[in-house]
Amino acid sequence: MTLKTGIVDLGSNTTRLVIYEYEPGRRFRLADEVREVVRLREGMGRTNVLRAAAMERSLNALRMFRAFCDTQGVEEVTAVATSAVRDAANKASFLARAEANTGWRLRVLSGEEEGFYGALGAINATGLREGFVVDLGGGSAQVVEVREGFPTRSVSLPLGALRLTELFLAPNKVRPEQVEALKAFTTEVLAPLDWFRHQPGDCLVALGGTIRNLAQIDQAQKRLPVRILPNYRFRAQDLHAISEHLWRLTLKKRTAIPGLRFDRADIIHAGALAYSVILQHSGFDAVVISRQGLREGLFYERFLVEQNRPIIDDLREFSVYNLARNFAFDETHTRHVAFLAQRMFDDLKPAHGLDESYQDLLWAASILHDIGVIVDYQYHHQHSSYIILNHALSGYAPRELALIALLTRYHRSKGVPKPGNLAPWLEKEDVRALMIMAGILRLAEYFERGRRQVIRDVRCHLDLDQGWLQIEVLAAGDAAMELWDAGRNIDVLASALGLEVELVGGVWLQE
Amino acid sequence: MTLKTGIVDLGSNTTRLVIYEYEPGRRFRLADEVREVVRLREGMGRTNVLRAAAMERSLNALRMFRAFCDTQGVEEVTAVATSAVRDAANKASFLARAEANTGWRLRVLSGEEEGFYGALGAINATGLREGFVVDLGGGSAQVVEVREGFPTRSVSLPLGALRLTELFLAPNKVRPEQVEALKAFTTEVLAPLDWFRHQPGDCLVALGGTIRNLAQIDQAQKRLPVRILPNYRFRAQDLHAISEHLWRLTLKKRTAIPGLRFDRADIIHAGALAYSVILQHSGFDAVVISRQGLREGLFYERFLVEQNRPIIDDLREFSVYNLARNFAFDETHTRHVAFLAQRMFDDLKPAHGLDESYQDLLWAASILHDIGVIVDYQYHHQHSSYIILNHALSGYAPRELALIALLTRYHRSKGVPKPGNLAPWLEKEDVRALMIMAGILRLAEYFERGRRQVIRDVRCHLDLDQGWLQIEVLAAGDAAMELWDAGRNIDVLASALGLEVELVGGVWLQE
Repeated sequence: MTLKTGIVDLGSNTTRLVIYEYEPGRRFRLADEVREVVRLREGMGRTNVLRAAAMERSLNALRMFRAFCDTQGVEEVTAVATSAVRDAANKASFLARAEANTGWRLRVLSGEEEGFYGALGAINATGLREGFVVDLGGGSAQVVEVREGFPTRSVSLPLGALRLTELFLAPNKVRPEQVEALKAFTTEVLAPLDWFRHQPGDCLVALGGTIRNLAQIDQAQKRLPVRILPNYRFRAQDLHAISEHLWRLTLKKRTAIPGLRFDRADIIHAGALAYSVILQHSGFDAVVISRQGLREGLFYERFLVEQNRPIIDDLREFSVYNLARNFAFDETHTRHVAFLAQRMFDDLKPAHGLDESYQDLLWAASILHDIGVIVDYQYHHQHSSYIILNHALSGYAPRELALIALLTRYHRSKGVPKPGNLAPWLEKEDVRALMIMAGILRLAEYFERGRRQVIRDVRCHLDLDQGWLQIEVLAAGDAAMELWDAGRNIDVLASALGLEVELVGGVWLQE
Repeated sequence: MTLKTGIVDLGSNTTRLVIYEYEPGRRFRLADEVREVVRLREGMGRTNVLRAAAMERSLNALRMFRAFCDTQGVEEVTAVATSAVRDAANKASFLARAEANTGWRLRVLSGEEEGFYGALGAINATGLREGFVVDLGGGSAQVVEVREGFPTRSVSLPLGALRLTELFLAPNKVRPEQVEALKAFTTEVLAPLDWFRHQPGDCLVALGGTIRNLAQIDQAQKRLPVRILPNYRFRAQDLHAISEHLWRLTLKKRTAIPGLRFDRADIIHAGALAYSVILQHSGFDAVVISRQGLREGLFYERFLVEQNRPIIDDLREFSVYNLARNFAFDETHTRHVAFLAQRMFDDLKPAHGLDESYQDLLWAASILHDIGVIVDYQYHHQHSSYIILNHALSGYAPRELALIALLTRYHRSKGVPKPGNLAPWLEKEDVRALMIMAGILRLAEYFERGRRQVIRDVRCHLDLDQGWLQIEVLAAGDAAMELWDAGRNIDVLASALGLEVELVGGVWLQE
């Protein structure tokens, strides 16, 4: 059964309504999002009083969200407020007005809770097991320690980008001493966190608009022909360089930077400086971008309501099935293609020598190869690839995503596999792996040409000395067509392995 | 209720199974396709006997199709055969074997019927009202006259690409006298067709793999950054040039031509030569590519079973709704956005001077702007644009498709509209029109920000002498948020029109 749930998140800079469509524990998708830059913290400064105009903007947005939910038939809504409201001297009055306007009782998250839910989202996006999650928002920054894949301690620090801007930086041209003051303040705030230090095996994950936007600037500077943000490994040295560059620019010049969102141009430099100090303090040489945070964390609590801990068990497997299920895939067919491909990958190990990390990507591509049909049947291999690149898969790094997308792109007999504009994401040995796996996937797909599982299994017999390979096809019936089609599509695998390949029809005997 | 139907089409070169998912008269989509190059006509030459190996390949394919339909739960199947079977001396025996193998009784279409159904597909793809449809397949070519949007007379000619190759051209290097013989034969076959001549207002539409592939070669030669094949106007002079080029190449060199499908390389030159003569005979200076043909024509007979004539009434409107319906769109919201956009377009006519052909594109973009959400909510404006370009809309020319895609791309506040890599498809005045219409669509979308139709209507008050425009927003309730958002998104329209724009909240009074 498909349910709908709404999450409202009233932050210091932006407020958002997101609507998820889901089948509990099985699949979900973000169905709608309304984002308003209401700047609730604007003008609060050190007095900690929510200002009239800022409250008005926020209440307008909340009223609209309420109407939106009503027209969309969303009855179950979780509405939370974070640091601006949490810190406000006049919070009671604002909350009462919000309730009078919408009927929603906003839950004001403590800094610790905010950190917890943000980390839940980040863990379910990246598969983080050991390390830290940083969520730097408009008003505050949360630092959460993650051990054995679950958030442990969490602190909230007064290091939001909007707050730091208001406290330290002049609106247009920033002076060096202001930057020094901001850095000194940040360093001082972080000083007590002696546990927030890189240990071997630890990973640092960051979430929120500031770090996403900084990573976008980084990718734009690197002139990547295809940009992939989720799970991107953003190197500390690149972040430091961007941070030192940004504050020296006027607002107008910042706005013109490729990759920068214009509605963040006035606070992004403060956020960049704070991240720079955070990385120095913690000693990480890179930060991984999480696509998910607080709102997703709140959602997972609903989505995984039956579980003890709202953490997805096998994240990579789940995210592949989740994407496939959102596109109404033929599960019997794709699972069988995956099975046949896995079998060949295993049997051919002496010939290709690829490790299991590749096998996992081949599996994912097998499950996802047909999702592009929803766009259009013609060229659906290209559409599958487009969707995978643009949807992202939790738990997979950009390089892995690129390989999965390329494998789906070449699952049909539509040209010889090549990395094309995804090449910058690949490592050297990936190109050979792509050829071999595309060769395997294509054969598996043609073995399943009739989608009838008539070819139950395959066995590969290798003679590396003589340079040949026999693929024995175990059929439970008439598989003439599948054999013929597969026979015409054997060249990619043959040339990738440098072997002569013969295809032999065999009989499947039930065990 | 969603139904599924299968169409099997056993041609001279390829045989296909297509499966449509549809709600009668309301929406449809191609859900699956299996294409096999079985070359049923191979070796038939002048004896007109289907050869043993060719029959075996075809029967294998048909058996697989049958199994495919069974596993996919498709019970309703229409199976037809065209010229190879029609012409075969041993057709009775082949048909009996086909039935014994599959349980399907193949309907052998007469040349006239084949032309009729091909034309039905083409008319429902292009909106052709007056002119001709040519369908050049492997074994034969059908020429159909279309008057008042319906096929009238139809002839089948022995001008298939496979047949012409076998009759006239040497397998590898073609000699000039062979080309002359092919042309002379084609000219002679066409000579009696004195009615197949261009008249003012007539249009020539062509369908089938040969012409599609030739147009792909043409677009590749023109180095278009984005290729759009459906309803492409392929100029006669370009076709002649390609035709004269192709036969001079060896098979290997033909295979290397960008845009050419490798499994057509051995017969494409014969098809090109035949088209060249057809264009000379009929006197058309261009041919429009139809995405649909025989199989679609057969499908429309089922899809529009309640209609007297299986022709879609308002093709452009239908194809927009069909695409939207396949992507589960919010019909109330998008129709209201379309209404508000139309209203502004009308009121602003004195300021922009754009004609109604543009208004129709604005309407289409309004209805389709959100379909990309299915790929991913983030960047759904880009995904909508991608889907429109890759799905194609029957009845719209590539230039129109490009404009609709660009409008959806810029319906949100994500940058200033620009043609980008679609520029080669646009005409000069289109760029200004794009800016104006994107400005209108964006405002209409923000007026509907809450998807609650609270802004019931708008009125534009123009003062061109003083250079200002007031948009009066007629709201049936609290529209503070919509007004605020729209206010922040007024700049695109203002700068496109060169007017100062003010937004005024008004009250909607029920008439």
